[in-house]
Amino acid sequence: MTSTIERPSVDARVDRLRAAAGEAGLDAVLVTNDASIAYFTGFWGMQLERLFAVAIPVSGGGALVVPRLEEDSAAGAPSGLERVVYDPTSDGIPELVEALGGGRVGVEEDHLVFARAEALRTADCVPSPAGSVIMGLRARKDADEVERMRKACRLVTEVMEQMFAELEVGAVEQTVNALVAHRLRERGATDSHPLVLFGPNGANPHGHPGDRTLAHGDVVCADVSAQVDGYWGDLTRCGTVGAPSDWAQAAWETVREAQAAAIAAARVGAPARDVDAAQRRIVEAHPELGRCLHGAGHAIGAEIHEPPFLIPRTTAALEAGMCVTIEPGLYRAGVGGIRLEDQVLITDDGPELVSDLPLELRTIGR
Amino acid sequence: MTSTIERPSVDARVDRLRAAAGEAGLDAVLVTNDASIAYFTGFWGMQLERLFAVAIPVSGGGALVVPRLEEDSAAGAPSGLERVVYDPTSDGIPELVEALGGGRVGVEEDHLVFARAEALRTADCVPSPAGSVIMGLRARKDADEVERMRKACRLVTEVMEQMFAELEVGAVEQTVNALVAHRLRERGATDSHPLVLFGPNGANPHGHPGDRTLAHGDVVCADVSAQVDGYWGDLTRCGTVGAPSDWAQAAWETVREAQAAAIAAARVGAPARDVDAAQRRIVEAHPELGRCLHGAGHAIGAEIHEPPFLIPRTTAALEAGMCVTIEPGLYRAGVGGIRLEDQVLITDDGPELVSDLPLELRTIGR
Repeated sequence: MTSTIERPSVDARVDRLRAAAGEAGLDAVLVTNDASIAYFTGFWGMQLERLFAVAIPVSGGGALVVPRLEEDSAAGAPSGLERVVYDPTSDGIPELVEALGGGRVGVEEDHLVFARAEALRTADCVPSPAGSVIMGLRARKDADEVERMRKACRLVTEVMEQMFAELEVGAVEQTVNALVAHRLRERGATDSHPLVLFGPNGANPHGHPGDRTLAHGDVVCADVSAQVDGYWGDLTRCGTVGAPSDWAQAAWETVREAQAAAIAAARVGAPARDVDAAQRRIVEAHPELGRCLHGAGHAIGAEIHEPPFLIPRTTAALEAGMCVTIEPGLYRAGVGGIRLEDQVLITDDGPELVSDLPLELRTIGR
Repeated sequence: MTSTIERPSVDARVDRLRAAAGEAGLDAVLVTNDASIAYFTGFWGMQLERLFAVAIPVSGGGALVVPRLEEDSAAGAPSGLERVVYDPTSDGIPELVEALGGGRVGVEEDHLVFARAEALRTADCVPSPAGSVIMGLRARKDADEVERMRKACRLVTEVMEQMFAELEVGAVEQTVNALVAHRLRERGATDSHPLVLFGPNGANPHGHPGDRTLAHGDVVCADVSAQVDGYWGDLTRCGTVGAPSDWAQAAWETVREAQAAAIAAARVGAPARDVDAAQRRIVEAHPELGRCLHGAGHAIGAEIHEPPFLIPRTTAALEAGMCVTIEPGLYRAGVGGIRLEDQVLITDDGPELVSDLPLELRTIGR
């Protein structure tokens, strides 16, 4: 896939990366994460075992390095960088090292694998963590990126509303998830991760859809995400089959309150962990309603989960242009889960919702 | 997801790993790849930014290390290993290091990321490549694993045949792929990668389905894969809308011949690259029909792509119990792609097909 972004945009990003790398005292930067490669070149590859990389020496030049298999796709990308194509007889490392030019090479330390880092060392490169240099650029979304996320959220909203409207007692969890994925893809998503969980299965926020059918009294926790034009939308809403139980109503209200508090805390300059603390304080005050099993959320963009993560150990401050999910939840073993998730843009004027999906606790069935 | 495998099986695998690690001169092994974790514990996690790991000291003991979020899922896994659960205030590394016990730690060098390798070093562990130790066990599939792959191939076969039977001129590429994914999921696949490409789009083996409609004369190259019970099936067949062109017929026959030659070469003791050479020699003898853009295939199992890769630079020999895809192709820019892919089990009695999907070049439409 070649993104619809234009050459001046991606090339300007490379210039900014080169400058940031120089400031960080690096001789070159090595970009290996698919989403980062797309950000700097407009080229979205399908990276399996073969190396894909962008090599940017601080002194100038640089290349998009791909296996022969991707020669044509890479040629079609909007980037002004040179293309270096390696043959199946190579693992791409010699070509990569030549493009980097050696020295202190900034790498995406949470993506580059050990074997490749060692191969760089052997070739007289010194791999150094530079994830924050790269993410420092990617984290602040521009207007075009925000518009892509809005588009993704609109698609998720449309498919989620249709799903809630059609859900009936007896529906099979696995089938509902397959149908949601189908609709997202059919309407233009290039990737999607629906996670619609029924009743007790929802008590595990990362549960797997199974063959259980929807029953009267179930809470449905629907976390639906889709990638459109290279960017993700990720929203969660809940519904109950019939009137909500006292637990469902109370848990939903607590989570709504926690979400509102965390959104309000999502301000420029606030340490990411403060956003987590804002929801945690409310959710953890109600152990009788369930457990607090995860942080407040994560940044989102070309990847569904990006740093900064809104968790107790992230001290980094939020910046204008960051987009994060805010998604507190309460989970009661054997009963179910309640979570509310929105995508929030951090702006100088305060937090701004990227989507306009109503929060309400849905009633399922007639 | 907890796999349906039983405790004696996964625990016996851990025992074999411990023994192999000791022979390799390691003090401990660190398993971080989701599929490897599942192999040794029966626990299939959803690993995003949080660390999941199996830590196996050679001297005994060991643990499955997961974040708090996965405590319940990990508890339900069939493994006899201790569970170590870390809180959101930790990145899991201190808990992991304690479970490993330090020393020379074998790691999956193509999976462990640089940041974690450096964190281990800082904690007085010496990370050493041990991917071959782990894959040396995973590569030789047992009867249960082969049966799971047969099941996955049966599902792919069923959905692919239905798709070829129903395809009509005017079908939208993206919609067809979404529908195939939907049917695979609905019938029990936990993951799938359909790649059904029409006409010129098929000239890129990793092309992306778009909004083009199926036209008379198109070649359809349908690469459909699905994961069932933790194991993958991956098959490719082709069809033409109306009678095949001279090119399509000739390319198909060449690819069929290349596939047969590569399958025949897939024997115990043969270097993996010889299987590639067997198909390459035939495909590359026909540049007038298109380009040879990739190797003969890859091993397959709990991951869709596993080593050994059947490419020119893999000298490792095939062993009984390995399962590989054999998938030569010919790609002609502006026209289309022809590929035939089967899954082949390497046995002491020679290569054995895991699926029974007919090879024939399908005719699409009435």
